[in-house]
Amino acid sequence: MPFELHPNLAQDGIGLGHFPLCRVVLINDATYPWFVLVPERAQISDTIDLTADDHATLWQESRVFGHGIMKAFGGDKLNVASLGNITPQLHIHHIVRFTTDPTWPGPVWGKHPMQPYTDAGLEEMRSKLQGIEGLCPS
Amino acid sequence: MPFELHPNLAQDGIGLGHFPLCRVVLINDATYPWFVLVPERAQISDTIDLTADDHATLWQESRVFGHGIMKAFGGDKLNVASLGNITPQLHIHHIVRFTTDPTWPGPVWGKHPMQPYTDAGLEEMRSKLQGIEGLCPS
Repeated sequence: MPFELHPNLAQDGIGLGHFPLCRVVLINDATYPWFVLVPERAQISDTIDLTADDHATLWQESRVFGHGIMKAFGGDKLNVASLGNITPQLHIHHIVRFTTDPTWPGPVWGKHPMQPYTDAGLEEMRSKLQGIEGLCPS
Repeated sequence: MPFELHPNLAQDGIGLGHFPLCRVVLINDATYPWFVLVPERAQISDTIDLTADDHATLWQESRVFGHGIMKAFGGDKLNVASLGNITPQLHIHHIVRFTTDPTWPGPVWGKHPMQPYTDAGLEEMRSKLQGIEGLCPS
């Protein structure tokens, strides 16, 4: 079965690019710089369901991406999480947190209505991701 | 500066063992099989603060540990998360989730009072972790 982005992620997110393994999706909530990495593998739900090679690649990409977004946004803390209790397709949240953000220090999930990006805001997000090693924009 | 477990983790958790890099701490809440892996490195807050080698080791240990606890507890979903907005020492949650658990499908943090383990319950947790490759009990 070929990989297809889960409809929940397609609805809540905007594709910004891809690494060799993972698709990069921006969650359409301008409250936080909030991205998910989605390994382009079908029928995988947990990180441990990946092969050892894919698992290692996922976390290498997470490391590069995490450094890139912390540098781009100058956040106070990086939250990295694979939950997927509602959307069963493996996706790993990467959220740049600020001590001034509205749900700090709590987790972001389910706490705040989503604030969709404006066209200008989205363009800014795309430009901030430029130059992250291995990330091809889409 | 030598590594010391953060007081919040020492207070909320019970040391069960260690991998070559990470200490394994059981969160003292019998509501879920809930563990944290704590890389024994001082002054590290985010996954990306680890060296590339330590980062790779962390996720190898996470993979082995995740497989071990999902097999031991027969859960429906594995939640893996590095948040640390309140406790700044890097610790990676590994939580076995069940569709019947009290906060499913929401995240576990801050949702439910902690239910401390009985001595018998704690002994059972220790015995369930036996045989996970590379995990030395303490």
